[in-house]
Amino acid sequence: MSTLQLAPDRYFEGDAARKAIARALYEQVRALPLICPHGHVDPRLFAEPDYLFGSPVDLFIIPDHYVTRMLVSQGVGLDELGVSARDGSSVERNHRMIWQLFAEKFGLFRGTPTGAWLNHEFFELFEIREKLTADSAQRIYDQIVEKLATPAFKPRALYQHFNIEVLATTDAATDELTQHAAIHASVWTGRIIPTFRPDAVVNIDGDGWSDNIQALGRVSGVSVHDYHSFIAALEQRRAFFKQMGARATDHAALSPYTVQLSDAEAGAIFQRALAGTASLSDAQMFTGHMLIQMARMSCEDGLVMQLHTGSLRNHNPSVYARFGRDMGADIPIAAEYTRNLKPLLDAVGSDARMRLILFTLDESTYARELAPLAGHYPALRLGPPWWFHDSFNGITRFFDGVMETAGVYNTAGFNDDTRAFCSIAARHDVWRRASANWLAGQVSRGIIDRDDAHELCQALCYGLAKDAYRL
Amino acid sequence: MSTLQLAPDRYFEGDAARKAIARALYEQVRALPLICPHGHVDPRLFAEPDYLFGSPVDLFIIPDHYVTRMLVSQGVGLDELGVSARDGSSVERNHRMIWQLFAEKFGLFRGTPTGAWLNHEFFELFEIREKLTADSAQRIYDQIVEKLATPAFKPRALYQHFNIEVLATTDAATDELTQHAAIHASVWTGRIIPTFRPDAVVNIDGDGWSDNIQALGRVSGVSVHDYHSFIAALEQRRAFFKQMGARATDHAALSPYTVQLSDAEAGAIFQRALAGTASLSDAQMFTGHMLIQMARMSCEDGLVMQLHTGSLRNHNPSVYARFGRDMGADIPIAAEYTRNLKPLLDAVGSDARMRLILFTLDESTYARELAPLAGHYPALRLGPPWWFHDSFNGITRFFDGVMETAGVYNTAGFNDDTRAFCSIAARHDVWRRASANWLAGQVSRGIIDRDDAHELCQALCYGLAKDAYRL
Amino acid sequence: MSTLQLAPDRYFEGDAARKAIARALYEQVRALPLICPHGHVDPRLFAEPDYLFGSPVDLFIIPDHYVTRMLVSQGVGLDELGVSARDGSSVERNHRMIWQLFAEKFGLFRGTPTGAWLNHEFFELFEIREKLTADSAQRIYDQIVEKLATPAFKPRALYQHFNIEVLATTDAATDELTQHAAIHASVWTGRIIPTFRPDAVVNIDGDGWSDNIQALGRVSGVSVHDYHSFIAALEQRRAFFKQMGARATDHAALSPYTVQLSDAEAGAIFQRALAGTASLSDAQMFTGHMLIQMARMSCEDGLVMQLHTGSLRNHNPSVYARFGRDMGADIPIAAEYTRNLKPLLDAVGSDARMRLILFTLDESTYARELAPLAGHYPALRLGPPWWFHDSFNGITRFFDGVMETAGVYNTAGFNDDTRAFCSIAARHDVWRRASANWLAGQVSRGIIDRDDAHELCQALCYGLAKDAYRL
Repeated sequence: MSTLQLAPDRYFEGDAARKAIARALYEQVRALPLICPHGHVDPRLFAEPDYLFGSPVDLFIIPDHYVTRMLVSQGVGLDELGVSARDGSSVERNHRMIWQLFAEKFGLFRGTPTGAWLNHEFFELFEIREKLTADSAQRIYDQIVEKLATPAFKPRALYQHFNIEVLATTDAATDELTQHAAIHASVWTGRIIPTFRPDAVVNIDGDGWSDNIQALGRVSGVSVHDYHSFIAALEQRRAFFKQMGARATDHAALSPYTVQLSDAEAGAIFQRALAGTASLSDAQMFTGHMLIQMARMSCEDGLVMQLHTGSLRNHNPSVYARFGRDMGADIPIAAEYTRNLKPLLDAVGSDARMRLILFTLDESTYARELAPLAGHYPALRLGPPWWFHDSFNGITRFFDGVMETAGVYNTAGFNDDTRAFCSIAARHDVWRRASANWLAGQVSRGIIDRDDAHELCQALCYGLAKDAYRL
Repeated sequence: MSTLQLAPDRYFEGDAARKAIARALYEQVRALPLICPHGHVDPRLFAEPDYLFGSPVDLFIIPDHYVTRMLVSQGVGLDELGVSARDGSSVERNHRMIWQLFAEKFGLFRGTPTGAWLNHEFFELFEIREKLTADSAQRIYDQIVEKLATPAFKPRALYQHFNIEVLATTDAATDELTQHAAIHASVWTGRIIPTFRPDAVVNIDGDGWSDNIQALGRVSGVSVHDYHSFIAALEQRRAFFKQMGARATDHAALSPYTVQLSDAEAGAIFQRALAGTASLSDAQMFTGHMLIQMARMSCEDGLVMQLHTGSLRNHNPSVYARFGRDMGADIPIAAEYTRNLKPLLDAVGSDARMRLILFTLDESTYARELAPLAGHYPALRLGPPWWFHDSFNGITRFFDGVMETAGVYNTAGFNDDTRAFCSIAARHDVWRRASANWLAGQVSRGIIDRDDAHELCQALCYGLAKDAYRL
Repeated sequence: MSTLQLAPDRYFEGDAARKAIARALYEQVRALPLICPHGHVDPRLFAEPDYLFGSPVDLFIIPDHYVTRMLVSQGVGLDELGVSARDGSSVERNHRMIWQLFAEKFGLFRGTPTGAWLNHEFFELFEIREKLTADSAQRIYDQIVEKLATPAFKPRALYQHFNIEVLATTDAATDELTQHAAIHASVWTGRIIPTFRPDAVVNIDGDGWSDNIQALGRVSGVSVHDYHSFIAALEQRRAFFKQMGARATDHAALSPYTVQLSDAEAGAIFQRALAGTASLSDAQMFTGHMLIQMARMSCEDGLVMQLHTGSLRNHNPSVYARFGRDMGADIPIAAEYTRNLKPLLDAVGSDARMRLILFTLDESTYARELAPLAGHYPALRLGPPWWFHDSFNGITRFFDGVMETAGVYNTAGFNDDTRAFCSIAARHDVWRRASANWLAGQVSRGIIDRDDAHELCQALCYGLAKDAYRL
């Protein structure tokens, strides 16, 4: 049997003296409450007191495209992993067999963040003490099944166990937030808040846009027949989300392109979209225009705006055709912020009411564009490394590339951005260790002193997220 | 009271053995004279024997956009910092209040190069021994005021104190260099040399170009009415600058685009510019063409050519409208050198008389384009990290990304590129420590030996700048 | 005399504890056989049992554009280095004088990979124990001459000495592989295999394309008069190469642009190319189309496809005019993979028969595009750092940027990609040390354990290359 261990000083680098500084910093933030201002956990987990995670495969494999994409890259089919096909074609249903396959391939995750998060969860949450291998696979499966059946593994219990202070979900503009209402109505006191994500009604070239506009009219009570009523419906939804506890909005676009259209121009595009005659250029312009509109509304209603750009979705047509979206086949592209964001920043960059948090998939923009922008505009904060970059090296590159120019206080702390609820503690732990390690490097080189490092560590691991998201 | 300290081994990383190597290398270059071949210090400092720096706010805050931009990014107005408005609108005049505000916000500079430079100046130059905080603000203000009133704080005295060997200013092509003439005529023996910067007459889309052309005609004695006379006037100015001690020219452009126009094409654009009908494309082509013309003149007169590109100026229109240029609102863009510089390098890249020093704001070009170019073309040297990248991490990334391919000897050592004269020693110290630290890393990994490291350290901290700028 | 030494722990970083881990990992891979799946060694070296390397200048300087480019960048002419001019103009013929010049300038290579490889060869292969300087130049020259005259310095003997298991050459599609046939026919048992490189017949804008098409017809026995027969001829050549031992193809293009043309479109472009009327756009489209055709053939015949893109060739026209291609004047450009490769990946990215190994000269694509692509598509593997990036820092950046997202098992191990046969052991040694060092960093930070590190080190230094190239 090969023993699974988590090194107490993991992620700390350097000699013993530097590691001791890192450890001391980490110990001061290790147990702070978790601020989770952006993520994709399903609110049903908390609305249903007796929510069940399903099998270990339901929990760890099927919904996690970080896991499945690596297995796919080495020739395993999504069908072999039990992922449901859109066309109803047959996929593997035997979860013990899927788990066995996963265990045999688990070596692929060596040195990856997914491997680190999983081992953290196995060790800390499921008290597993052997490495996942072909040999140990079924024993570990049994152990996870057993744990999942206990009351301690209900999401509400885990929320307390993880010491979460607040957790934001991400919800379509047309969502009626019934799960959130149920949580509010329940005796449970956890703070689960929605986030307003209007992409599906704003991006006129998206699948099912017309249906989404219908839905928007229905839930808002505003008949959406032109640009003017569209804006009114969005304002109604934002007010509703805010009343339901939302503190932020979230926006995805292929690029951070923004443009200020006249009402007449925006209205004409919207009519073409309704008529099904909008061009690709119309769609780009409208998305770019709506980002400024959303920023304008943020100034008015105080919701913090988040912008995630740079992912070319559904890159693999065969995966998309059979399994649909969010299957690990989204690939980043290069980004440009200096020019693309200028129209938006011209409008709101210096507005004291505005808060815009930027995320990128193009690290070459950290030191070149994002840090200089955030180091000037009062409205801007930089979100933590996102998606492919939310790893120890990714976080370290972010710190090294951003902090000298932007300053720590123009960043937004950490968010886990995950749909894998059980991984949340593991992800925050990597961030906290990486923060402590980075600051220890500064202290050991005499760049900052221990007092400053302590304050910065508290900020990075707790205060900045709370402040940036106005929580 | 919180003590201000400068760690003797600051910026050195690794275990004790590696730090000892770094310290030994640093000790050998620590006290070498400072070569300052590129910067923006006002020559008046040296022309006027009794020059006064003004208040601590005049010295450290108002003229330093590194300082003001960080404060602005956290919601402080430039008016609150005493920066003069172009529209004559009211700004804070109470320097003690401004200093207090600055001190309260000084934590924003933790881990930034600005914070490091300021603390260096406070400690080494002003003998301050407590951290700048809201509590210590007025005591420190008093201490700085007291020091500034002493003869040791006259610029000429500081020049000797800093052990500067030569300092180049940057001067418009139309500058009559009266301050430089006054320095030459004085008994003082410091070496202050001008640098020829013709952007304002070369970039035909710049503010006030027509006025600048008028001025060019006036100071050169050449009536500038066409392209031919424009070139003649520039040649006259270069000869004058050279006679006044200049060793270099400096050129700024948004991109390093170069193009070889025929005289007829260049002449036609110049006429359109005079007539006020030049297009944006005309301006880009003319700038690209003039870079080659300037290179041609450099081959002839031996002035070293510097090229700084990649900054989108005046990104924030509200700041520009009220406070003007150079207010911390210039933001970098991505750069391309391989194709853009080809026409210029076709013309002069292999010319033994030519020396072109390149600077970038896009670090992704270090290993991809700049190091390969500098590692081939005899005419090229790479300037040190510029602006947003002149920090410890920025310098380290430059060393790591450039040196293996370009070789140390195709780089140009350090220049401080600052208008903050009092920060010069602090900036050179960071470079010298970063150089020693980087070389110590090479030695401790057995890549180079101590003898080679010593020679390289001398070159990086003294010899290369002198050689690259033909000083 | 200045002693030449190779530090036993060179390239290992950190404190003694971390270096000990690195050393232990390195010791386990140090003596593994070398897999050389991609390179440019001339097969004549092995076809001719008595092959002579010539003088030290013939061996180390004239054919190595890494060496000559650095000297050129500091003002040495290629003619002074004995490089033959295409125009027959006179170049230096005195190899002792050239060597003396090289020795005087050898300090330029401090800290460069070329310097490290050369010192490795001097020390390990030629048993030189003093640094190359102006003083030692002729002694070292003598020592090299003496060694080269011994039987141990025949290429076949060095192949065994280096413990090479397999070495692939790179050969034009029109090559008749007579050297490979001679090796097969000889008593010698080394494994030298060809690689199919069809650029010269595929890139219709290349110099001498018509002649190459003629040659293709001749060697394939297929009359190439249209697109259909062109494809047939290529298929014939691939079959021949495969029969001669080839396991892979190699393709160079300026960008990784791919496009799927119809047979009619491709045929029309081919006719224009034959008629000499093809446009630049035709050439780009045809190259992009042929990459997909080559991928289709790889699916059918199992040859592994390699793609090297991003080098703008012959950047310096004066060097090209006098000395021709491959003279150190090729400069990288920025790359885009996500969109450019999509048509090819749509066609073969999920095909279990396909294996495509990608190489880049743009490191900003490592974490942004290449690792995400390789971490999803079963057909993809990432080749090791190439050309300007095959240095210790380059390798380290590759590991840090790629491995967390792609996973180690989606990379292709090392290849030396050199025409300098004597440098092969030195290059593999750097990779093995860099791998051990990187893994030691992971172990010392508790990210992976020693068992995993050991397996990964074996994979990086031996197994992955063998597997990726189906050897």
